[in-house]
Amino acid sequence: MSNTNKEIPTSKLKIIPLGGLEQIGMNITAFEYEDSIIVVDCGLAFPQGDMLGIDLVIPDVTYLKDNYDKLKGFVITHGHEDHIGSIAYTLAQVNAPVYATRLTMALIEHKFEEYDKEHSVQGAKLMETVRRKTVTFGQSINLGAFRVEFIRTNHSIVDAAALAIYSPVGCVVHTGDFKVDYTPVYGDAIDLQRFAEIGKKGVLALLCDSTNAERPGFTPSEKTLAPIFDNLFEENKKSRIFVATFASNVDRVRQIINTAYKFGRKVAVEGRSMVNIIDTAQRLECIDIPENTLVTLDEMKEIPADRQVIITTGSQGESMAALSRMADGTHRKITIGAGDTVIFSSHPIPGNEKPVTRIINQLLQKGVNVVFQDVHVSGHACQEEIKLIYSLVQPKFSVPVHGEYKHLMAQAKIAKDLGFSKDRIRILSSGDVLELTPESAEVNGKVPVGDILVDGSGIGDVGNVVLRDRQRLAADGIIIVCMAITEEGMLVAGPDVVSRGFVYIKESEDLLSEAAAVAQSTVEKCLDEGADWNTIKMAVRDAMGDFVWRNLKRKPMILPIIEEV
Amino acid sequence: MSNTNKEIPTSKLKIIPLGGLEQIGMNITAFEYEDSIIVVDCGLAFPQGDMLGIDLVIPDVTYLKDNYDKLKGFVITHGHEDHIGSIAYTLAQVNAPVYATRLTMALIEHKFEEYDKEHSVQGAKLMETVRRKTVTFGQSINLGAFRVEFIRTNHSIVDAAALAIYSPVGCVVHTGDFKVDYTPVYGDAIDLQRFAEIGKKGVLALLCDSTNAERPGFTPSEKTLAPIFDNLFEENKKSRIFVATFASNVDRVRQIINTAYKFGRKVAVEGRSMVNIIDTAQRLECIDIPENTLVTLDEMKEIPADRQVIITTGSQGESMAALSRMADGTHRKITIGAGDTVIFSSHPIPGNEKPVTRIINQLLQKGVNVVFQDVHVSGHACQEEIKLIYSLVQPKFSVPVHGEYKHLMAQAKIAKDLGFSKDRIRILSSGDVLELTPESAEVNGKVPVGDILVDGSGIGDVGNVVLRDRQRLAADGIIIVCMAITEEGMLVAGPDVVSRGFVYIKESEDLLSEAAAVAQSTVEKCLDEGADWNTIKMAVRDAMGDFVWRNLKRKPMILPIIEEV
Repeated sequence: MSNTNKEIPTSKLKIIPLGGLEQIGMNITAFEYEDSIIVVDCGLAFPQGDMLGIDLVIPDVTYLKDNYDKLKGFVITHGHEDHIGSIAYTLAQVNAPVYATRLTMALIEHKFEEYDKEHSVQGAKLMETVRRKTVTFGQSINLGAFRVEFIRTNHSIVDAAALAIYSPVGCVVHTGDFKVDYTPVYGDAIDLQRFAEIGKKGVLALLCDSTNAERPGFTPSEKTLAPIFDNLFEENKKSRIFVATFASNVDRVRQIINTAYKFGRKVAVEGRSMVNIIDTAQRLECIDIPENTLVTLDEMKEIPADRQVIITTGSQGESMAALSRMADGTHRKITIGAGDTVIFSSHPIPGNEKPVTRIINQLLQKGVNVVFQDVHVSGHACQEEIKLIYSLVQPKFSVPVHGEYKHLMAQAKIAKDLGFSKDRIRILSSGDVLELTPESAEVNGKVPVGDILVDGSGIGDVGNVVLRDRQRLAADGIIIVCMAITEEGMLVAGPDVVSRGFVYIKESEDLLSEAAAVAQSTVEKCLDEGADWNTIKMAVRDAMGDFVWRNLKRKPMILPIIEEV
Repeated sequence: MSNTNKEIPTSKLKIIPLGGLEQIGMNITAFEYEDSIIVVDCGLAFPQGDMLGIDLVIPDVTYLKDNYDKLKGFVITHGHEDHIGSIAYTLAQVNAPVYATRLTMALIEHKFEEYDKEHSVQGAKLMETVRRKTVTFGQSINLGAFRVEFIRTNHSIVDAAALAIYSPVGCVVHTGDFKVDYTPVYGDAIDLQRFAEIGKKGVLALLCDSTNAERPGFTPSEKTLAPIFDNLFEENKKSRIFVATFASNVDRVRQIINTAYKFGRKVAVEGRSMVNIIDTAQRLECIDIPENTLVTLDEMKEIPADRQVIITTGSQGESMAALSRMADGTHRKITIGAGDTVIFSSHPIPGNEKPVTRIINQLLQKGVNVVFQDVHVSGHACQEEIKLIYSLVQPKFSVPVHGEYKHLMAQAKIAKDLGFSKDRIRILSSGDVLELTPESAEVNGKVPVGDILVDGSGIGDVGNVVLRDRQRLAADGIIIVCMAITEEGMLVAGPDVVSRGFVYIKESEDLLSEAAAVAQSTVEKCLDEGADWNTIKMAVRDAMGDFVWRNLKRKPMILPIIEEV
């Protein structure tokens, strides 16, 4: 058993967000009581703009490794990337049982399969070694000192759950990502009665979704989109219709198919991630598709344009997604143009506005009719829904979660408006240890957390040095100065100057030959003075750097290489 | 005289947008009639996300160079970067007289001075050689076959003008960037009477600002912000107040100073571009500042926090601007924190949402009170204002300008709603030659246009090859394989493997030494077979590429260098 936390009294309940330094979109939170740790969610983040070449960001789980003997399991609220995206990477380090509802578990298993395929050589397969238990709503799981109950909620993916986490110190309710949808497309509405019942018995703390905490009012029901789709299909009767939406929004796809069926159209789904999720949802009967409605893209060829609907990925402007390829004319199977209608059933996630607009402009220039307003509803609770949950649960402490700092602050403001005093609201940073007693909630200490960068199949081998180099290479390119020198200090070849990403050589030959001359005289001077290799390299770097800055006001990376012959 | 366009009949009026391939934010339009060419505006664009390391994008003005003998001058509508930003670069190639209103001309002269300083060695100074004439509203300029009248409008910068361009074929009205502000902060309202008068006499074509053509209604007056500032200052009486806004929005700064004065506060302006513009505006008396209100940052030190207002650049999240440096704690003179209030008097321009949000989060985490909603009005006309201008001008042809394709389409829709038939609306792409007769408007032919990339002080020396290399370097870095080989084909040093931006070396030593072994055996095999240098390089590139992809699923640039000794 680990002794690293001896100084912290073990009779408190600890809540520790482990989700990376920025804590944006990487949900993973440890709950610890004495010798029991459970982890809620296991997400990834997408790289920030300055993380060049990085594919994904996953959490550093050193704390879980150091306390592995306490780890009882992972409980997962729903199947979005920011909640399950790092689960394979994490379980490969700290194997433990996983608990989730049906669709969520199916998507987790898909992650395991992909990971096992890619990392087949090293270690045992996750699909074989990770214990998995699919839970149903209302069911409870015992995990050491904890009992965890799964409560039905609504969200933009099917089978989303909130969690009631019972500990000897008290009950903590974690909403997961949620909205209140009284008329969901699939399944039942959020189990508000159960929230009330648990609240009535007394709740120590509420960890509530903050994503839309800045927005007043209520998020509309997913079902409010049905008449909107009907109208759009009616208005574009003669058009082939494309609808771009989030791959994981099974209910949205269901509604589009509904409308398509009503208008006698066939539907094809395009985009790898969407095909995967819809297949899974069909297998699990989370989506119910009228017979003979879903066809393949190849079968679509036989069907008249005005009887076609194509649901596609790429609504966020992702450059490799199906819609992008249609818009720039590189899709292998679909040529899009005048007579087609593209409906964006999505809002751009902050940061994606420009790529989305770029696609819209490309489509308009091809003569496509583009609809991009008011065909989407959020999957997150707005202010009135947040107030409703607070009123049902009536927690002693408010711990806003899920969102940027400004969203957490917005929820703190809601709590304040509801009468919470300052000392009953706690906003946590990554690694903060929130210690709860039945009477108090204080941040005491910090555990190690961090962002692990994934690039290709390399995990964590790209750090700050590499990123800084990439930023420099990206901005001004590289100049390599290569030469061969004998052991005795005689220059026998070079210095040759090679550049990449610096200037277009043909138009800049003069400059580059001048640069070579600068390098030559620098090296010769150094050799005359009997300088060592490192001194020569430094002198070349300085001389070339000055030369380039003087002539072009640029700072490329300068890399001298000496071959000793 | 140039004969390149002999096939186009010279009795037509030609309108040719020259603003780069993407035509976003780079306003420069040629008007040509027989042997006369005038150019309206001369802007730059900011680089797209994939233009790594590029500072600015300016237009390729080959067409003006080829027809230099026809060029009569440049008429400039207002002083924003997208309308004057490339004027120094362009006039250095095609020197011609410049006509603009007072503040616009002062900002143009500032461009000339900066350019002269940076390019002092080559050629004559622009400030000495470019003929400049400051015009007043209502004034007309004769330029060859053209007469150009400057008409007062309102915009988010003082002294903005629309142009009535009279040619033998008819009158074309160009709105520039505008809004209708009946109660402007400085100067008079847009001269709607003159629009009407010109319209009454008959207008051939209207080139109208499309930026807000998707937005219904009217853009509110700049003055509607005054009570909002008053309220915010009242609410934050005990706070030091920062207001972040656009450097060029002189009227906004005026209003903030007004409110500050009313509340007995002193004002300092921070950020190089804002200081420059406010100085210029004061000198030209475009802004009238109560005595003893404006102080320097150093003088501010003596003043109590609740008597301070600091107006700053950086409202778009620009990483080098003053506000960014305050938010991340690197500003030399200002430390920001609890007790301070920061008001964002701006909306993020599409694409800047993420950096803006990042700063907001940083400020909130420092305990700053941040106000970022509803403290801004646009400088561009919404749908009702566009309809108003159409109704006053009543042009025969509609030519939507200024905006992305979707904005131009939105204005085309407005024109359609106003009764314009399809053949009376023309949306132009860059380089399109729109030929106008009194009866017709048809696109006939294309002139050369393009984006010239400016990086540091290099103009046009970065092209697609360099950009592609930078993208690759940014994504996966570079591996250099360096070796010395004798003329006889004997390997005497290396191959040595050096990488940058690829992997963090310390943790990847094994991989890199394996890579070196791959290179070694590849080179030795080639030499045994008597391969030439190019074959060796190609073999190394292939072998290393395979090796890295197999191990890491990455594609760094691989650059073999052979020193012949």
